[in-house]
Amino acid sequence: MQSIHEAALAELVAVGLGRLTMEGIAKRAGTAKTSLYRRWSAPHDVLLDAIHHEHPQEVPSPAADDLRGDLLRALRQLVAWLGTPTAAAVAAIMAERRRYPELARALYERVFDARGGRFTLTVLRFYAARGHLDPARITPIVADLGEALVFKLALDADAPPSEEQLVAIVDQAILPAVGLDPARRSVKS
Amino acid sequence: MQSIHEAALAELVAVGLGRLTMEGIAKRAGTAKTSLYRRWSAPHDVLLDAIHHEHPQEVPSPAADDLRGDLLRALRQLVAWLGTPTAAAVAAIMAERRRYPELARALYERVFDARGGRFTLTVLRFYAARGHLDPARITPIVADLGEALVFKLALDADAPPSEEQLVAIVDQAILPAVGLDPARRSVKS
Repeated sequence: MQSIHEAALAELVAVGLGRLTMEGIAKRAGTAKTSLYRRWSAPHDVLLDAIHHEHPQEVPSPAADDLRGDLLRALRQLVAWLGTPTAAAVAAIMAERRRYPELARALYERVFDARGGRFTLTVLRFYAARGHLDPARITPIVADLGEALVFKLALDADAPPSEEQLVAIVDQAILPAVGLDPARRSVKS
Repeated sequence: MQSIHEAALAELVAVGLGRLTMEGIAKRAGTAKTSLYRRWSAPHDVLLDAIHHEHPQEVPSPAADDLRGDLLRALRQLVAWLGTPTAAAVAAIMAERRRYPELARALYERVFDARGGRFTLTVLRFYAARGHLDPARITPIVADLGEALVFKLALDADAPPSEEQLVAIVDQAILPAVGLDPARRSVKS
């Protein structure tokens, strides 16, 4: 399975979204095309499966006693993920979303939504469920803060954000947005 | 001047960054190439000038009595700008920044920085200078919130953010980040 996933991602890089075929993936994986068809009906399905399989999963501290650290770890996972072949595949799908709208939609539904929706969202929900922050604060905008700022910094610098920038995102954007502002004295936690 | 700016932007759309020439811009503007050279030394300079000229300028309320409304207006300016030929030209430069690193750098320095650095930043500084918020709160991360979220929403939806989303960005992200949290009772202003 792993080798077929890797083959699908490598084949995408080599030929592009429009020329991704079952044959090309099978050849690269060193397997028969028929064995691919046993599991998937089209090359884009293999690709989505590969992206899904490699998508990081946030694991908050079980005692729910380190919201700041858990948010930071979630952002580090995002930054690490940005450097993977999976992220390159996602970028390729996004770049051609108008040509393959179904594929882009499936990416959001079958991968992102299925894997927690957004980086930091699993952590935020975990702490909200345990009474550390108001669940009403976890709006779509607030859930998007981490990804939005990481993407923006990466775009501006053409390089992944630094550790200091990730800390700043947590302390200056996410925590204030959920009402836990490190710059104020009145932080409840 | 306006017609030459427009010609440069239209020519970029037609031929791409790599084939933008003084001749092409002059022809499209209905003028002589020599008259372009009187003012600019290269086609990329004409392009930067055109982008600079069209870049919106934030104008905060003179009495500094409507931070929320001024932030919202700044975000509306950004969304309106995203639909212009200038924004398409910026996207073209960003997409080819590795081929034209000097051009991308000049875009940041001669346009974005010269025009206030970031959407919402002029407004935030204006209110901070008048004592309505702590200037130390206006960090690079906080100054980037508006652009980062607008770009992220536009990317996810493949459409510009709605008015409701802009309001949510102001109320749920920017105001909390500068310590003026509409969801708390203790809003000072």
